[in-house]
Amino acid sequence: MMRIIEAVPNFSEGRRSEVVDQILDAFKGRANCQLLDHHADKDHNRLVVTVVGEPEAVMEACFAAAGTAADLIDMDKHRGSHPRIGATDVIPLLPVQGVDMKECVEMARALGERLATELGIPVYLYEEAAKRPERRSLEVIRRGEYEMLKDEISLEHRQPDLGPAEMHKAAGATVVGARQPLIAYNVYLRTSDVSVAKEIARAVRGSSGGFVNVKAIGLEVEGDAVQVSMNLTDFRRTPVHRVFEFIKREALHRGVAVKRSEIVGLLPQAALISTARYYLRLTEFSPSDQILERRLEAEK
Amino acid sequence: MMRIIEAVPNFSEGRRSEVVDQILDAFKGRANCQLLDHHADKDHNRLVVTVVGEPEAVMEACFAAAGTAADLIDMDKHRGSHPRIGATDVIPLLPVQGVDMKECVEMARALGERLATELGIPVYLYEEAAKRPERRSLEVIRRGEYEMLKDEISLEHRQPDLGPAEMHKAAGATVVGARQPLIAYNVYLRTSDVSVAKEIARAVRGSSGGFVNVKAIGLEVEGDAVQVSMNLTDFRRTPVHRVFEFIKREALHRGVAVKRSEIVGLLPQAALISTARYYLRLTEFSPSDQILERRLEAEK
Repeated sequence: MMRIIEAVPNFSEGRRSEVVDQILDAFKGRANCQLLDHHADKDHNRLVVTVVGEPEAVMEACFAAAGTAADLIDMDKHRGSHPRIGATDVIPLLPVQGVDMKECVEMARALGERLATELGIPVYLYEEAAKRPERRSLEVIRRGEYEMLKDEISLEHRQPDLGPAEMHKAAGATVVGARQPLIAYNVYLRTSDVSVAKEIARAVRGSSGGFVNVKAIGLEVEGDAVQVSMNLTDFRRTPVHRVFEFIKREALHRGVAVKRSEIVGLLPQAALISTARYYLRLTEFSPSDQILERRLEAEK
Repeated sequence: MMRIIEAVPNFSEGRRSEVVDQILDAFKGRANCQLLDHHADKDHNRLVVTVVGEPEAVMEACFAAAGTAADLIDMDKHRGSHPRIGATDVIPLLPVQGVDMKECVEMARALGERLATELGIPVYLYEEAAKRPERRSLEVIRRGEYEMLKDEISLEHRQPDLGPAEMHKAAGATVVGARQPLIAYNVYLRTSDVSVAKEIARAVRGSSGGFVNVKAIGLEVEGDAVQVSMNLTDFRRTPVHRVFEFIKREALHRGVAVKRSEIVGLLPQAALISTARYYLRLTEFSPSDQILERRLEAEK
């Protein structure tokens, strides 16, 4: 089985198309590395890239792109509505296949080390790769954004995990880490009363007493439905089906039916397989032995 | 996306290991063709092989194995408890990926044509590849087995679809066809009363008024449970989750809980994905666009 990771690097440029193109070029034409998606947002002034492939190839592409971003972006001139501390703002690495989280953490730290030593960029390690517990949270690292961090970076509690305790002259600082693939998941409720969606969002999300690994808000959507809009940040520990069943019960309790649910963007196959196992009560099932396509892949 | 079919050829030899080995050799060492599994049964005196790969490679392997079987097996001397009409008794071809049923039917007929013209074996076409409606059923074709068919093969209603209207001197006749992958699926009920499993098996199976594409029997199993043991012969039309929910309701109606369910052997990934979509009500979901691993496969 091929070893595969995903990276979702974020760069602080969503307006100058020639800069966006040059950053994207760093991900193109590489063996064993595929640029799956990118989204440049003018309001955020930010570029989000999704790239997958063999670990070495993906890390090499991210490193090259960070070099391009450092050459072309000046953080002193950057303005945008999304929080950021650097030209290459954050690089999360995600295990997809044949790679476990421990290895992904090692990869994140190795990539951070290269950014620090070869490009002179101060690097913070977050999520699973964090070395200080409070830095598991991206919000903590980015507090006050580029402008405040520039002044505070030499203070003990704000010093980077790798590299110099001062900002790179143009590129600022970068956050590198490892996390589980995030699943963007929405559940639609058959009511026009958005307060029901907001109440259920509060009940389901970790920040107000619900599940860890779930972020949620209640939204009005077109038509006759409202939506509980979520990010599931660790589907292995807090699976999609458990969240769905919880919301179904909370909605029923309020006399509201669930209309449908929705995956936004990509999700790993394992999330759907574990859902099928849960509902069919397939307690003794081996995906690698019993799914035909997996057997084919394994025998290659 | 690579085109993949599965074949599950059955040969009338499960006792002489040197013959079994020579038949298996026909499937080994071929490019784009993998021998996934085989089972030689002494009571049945039968060998069941599971092979997957690119259509041309799989068909070539099946043809070669049929030649070996014709050389090494003499149907006049064959005894065994499983119904059979030939040395290579039956070859079902199954679409797995990038191949539809219509193409699979064409492949089955082309393979049958080769067996008939190059090896002189009378060939019957069954299931989706049948040319006579009654021959969709394997049981109809095999009625009276080798011994009776030998006498009746020249009769109009028993003549083969391809090849001579007389048995091959040693190899008898062969059935070739196309069908959906079959899923062997068992549901365990929390009762020691096997009559509940037998009643539910009658309710769920097509032959006594239940779902088409479902064959079922009720069985005692070890421990405190009984089992509804099924073959799902077309999971796209009669999906696993619909059968499971039906049995759950029928069991509840009798005051019995479902303990768990079980997939025996292999199943196509699509069966699990459609199950997850059903339970999560993912009405707008594109497996090829939204499952990360599929995107990777597609970009190769």
